[in-house]
Amino acid sequence: MKFIDGSITSVPGVLASGVHAGFKPDKKDFALIYFPEGATIAGVFTLNKIYAHHVAYCREALKEHTKFKALAVNSGNANACNGYEGYQALLESTHIVADALDILPTEVLPASTGVIGSPFQANLIEGVMAEAKEALSSKGGAEANEAILTTDKMLKHQAYEVEISGQKITFGAITKGSTMIHPNLGTMLSFITTDIQAEQALLNQALGQATKLTFNRLLTDGHTSTNDTVLVCATGQSSVQLTEANYAAFVEALTEVCQDMAQRIAIDGGGSTKFITVQVEGAHSEEEAVQLGKYLARSPLMKATLSRSDPNWGRVSSGIGSSDIEHLDPEAIQVFFESERGSILVWDSNQFVHYLEEDARQIILEQEIVIRIVLNQGEHSASIWTCDMSEDFVEVTSKYARL
Amino acid sequence: MKFIDGSITSVPGVLASGVHAGFKPDKKDFALIYFPEGATIAGVFTLNKIYAHHVAYCREALKEHTKFKALAVNSGNANACNGYEGYQALLESTHIVADALDILPTEVLPASTGVIGSPFQANLIEGVMAEAKEALSSKGGAEANEAILTTDKMLKHQAYEVEISGQKITFGAITKGSTMIHPNLGTMLSFITTDIQAEQALLNQALGQATKLTFNRLLTDGHTSTNDTVLVCATGQSSVQLTEANYAAFVEALTEVCQDMAQRIAIDGGGSTKFITVQVEGAHSEEEAVQLGKYLARSPLMKATLSRSDPNWGRVSSGIGSSDIEHLDPEAIQVFFESERGSILVWDSNQFVHYLEEDARQIILEQEIVIRIVLNQGEHSASIWTCDMSEDFVEVTSKYARL
Repeated sequence: MKFIDGSITSVPGVLASGVHAGFKPDKKDFALIYFPEGATIAGVFTLNKIYAHHVAYCREALKEHTKFKALAVNSGNANACNGYEGYQALLESTHIVADALDILPTEVLPASTGVIGSPFQANLIEGVMAEAKEALSSKGGAEANEAILTTDKMLKHQAYEVEISGQKITFGAITKGSTMIHPNLGTMLSFITTDIQAEQALLNQALGQATKLTFNRLLTDGHTSTNDTVLVCATGQSSVQLTEANYAAFVEALTEVCQDMAQRIAIDGGGSTKFITVQVEGAHSEEEAVQLGKYLARSPLMKATLSRSDPNWGRVSSGIGSSDIEHLDPEAIQVFFESERGSILVWDSNQFVHYLEEDARQIILEQEIVIRIVLNQGEHSASIWTCDMSEDFVEVTSKYARL
Repeated sequence: MKFIDGSITSVPGVLASGVHAGFKPDKKDFALIYFPEGATIAGVFTLNKIYAHHVAYCREALKEHTKFKALAVNSGNANACNGYEGYQALLESTHIVADALDILPTEVLPASTGVIGSPFQANLIEGVMAEAKEALSSKGGAEANEAILTTDKMLKHQAYEVEISGQKITFGAITKGSTMIHPNLGTMLSFITTDIQAEQALLNQALGQATKLTFNRLLTDGHTSTNDTVLVCATGQSSVQLTEANYAAFVEALTEVCQDMAQRIAIDGGGSTKFITVQVEGAHSEEEAVQLGKYLARSPLMKATLSRSDPNWGRVSSGIGSSDIEHLDPEAIQVFFESERGSILVWDSNQFVHYLEEDARQIILEQEIVIRIVLNQGEHSASIWTCDMSEDFVEVTSKYARL
């Protein structure tokens, strides 16, 4: 797969814009993504038992329809936990967007991110729809990305080219996510476009497989968002048709796209300074490897220690022991700290290892580090992506409500 | 129950001292607790699957014996995850302590807290035993408390008087604990003395009941320590005998002692500025209430937000939804912020509530606050104690290895 400069609008059949509507005091906060010829859309959503109105709406809409023409996404207000009025405002917003684009309200999928529990004002979208429509462009992906960010410090967009069935197809993606990251079958907001021709059912299946191995292996702070949403939108403007024959190749490509976006969220995790991969090997099952990896990725103790590049592996060993995985033989476990600078075994078979602390520190001084845990009890492994926890975490987290 | 100035040595039959042995660069780091006439001891310990040598040793010792004469406790080195040599050093230390006090090695119970994975040097205890023995005193409880601290910012000791069977008995307690707090049937280090006469079996049963409702309702950072230990030591020097008849009264008193110590750990949690009670009401079962309370008490998002006295209750509602409790009806839930300054309903039946944000802020500006969650789904409730998470958390956590 080839990474190319671009984003969702690098895919034929996709226009986008990002403008300021007033959900935030001054930044861009409304993204309009338009498919003039329509797109087949599949989605996965948060499993938080308390979910945003757009999650409820999109779940139903994707059951009733397969093709849509617009995504309308705001940041600055999650439109969650704000009752019946919030849902009414969402319905109103789909009509406002449909009227402006001269399409049907049922061809619009809305999504929101931002502060939970504030009244949602559809009239902010009404006030800015003409401008957003006017700005629609095949170069507007980055602006749309900007408009869906909240605490994110960096844009997260990319375009990708891959050959499937001997022919080129294109992917584009924009993502937001930094805090409240503990996806559970869905995640944050991520919008992926592709020009493949696809039936919704097969697209759904492919997205489910890809997110399981990517967004669901990501965790920054252990809260599943009320608004997690991944949509993949296939405009069908390439000559390739998704079939059982090329399905595996498509899933592989989509997984790579999702992995790239998921890792960027961890890199931009709230108050993060390091990208950490917790790699668990030699587990009895993949589930067990994921369970242990997520337990550690949720550990403020380990993450705060690593933020200072302190090779205090007691934070790893005590975390392994307090996790809830069923089988654990401390005498068999090995823990390694790894980065581009090398690999060092720091704990082996419940014994301390005679290594130079300064060597370990040099390795984890890097911005991308791997905590590799070899359980030596089975054949299964999994990698979980997370970030460290610096003093900025508190700053970023508590400032959030004011963005 | 009457709280009186004092600690473990306020109980007849208990002497203690605290000295500097060299496990830490300069602070007191070795506590000697001596029962000249012996004490019947019961204990509960960490359920971390990776546990310190003293935990393994004490579990066996308490099965084989009921009476002991000394506790030897060091801070600065956890004597955990450091292999066979660590266990040998522990055995050596029991002999060193026994020789100096002219008692049997089997009458000594050791305990350790501090950095995981460092070689343990029993000779540090040998070098300081004469001084520790010389300093033993019936006023030495506070010094013993000082010697078992690590990242703790405050001493945690108290004496208590209570009438049982119409006669006075005394309790004393010293505790350490601030980080790596997520007890699981045991916790941190807490040593409780009492002058009641008791059989070990009944004392064990009482301690189990008391810790279930106190230390096991405490969580600061979600890591169960490898060294968690609670010992209750009954010198039997009062005229009261623990029997089935006064058992309930004794458990009630012991529970109050444990609750006082557990709450002090939360107040002194790593980098904490607030003591937070997560109070869950109206749950289907007590287990469910505890599960939800612990999930929230482990949430860095909620705790960082509260550290700034920011009444952003979205951090509470999204946490409730991401918890793993089985039954949840968002339409029935109410969330209150409470403190001495009053109570305010901030989220009701999945609707935002029209309240003044400034009123909510005033309430949670207090140092002791309650997040009260009423599920309105059953009759059960539970309170979990924790602390907020300030920028200091990272500082305190990463500095730990250097203490």
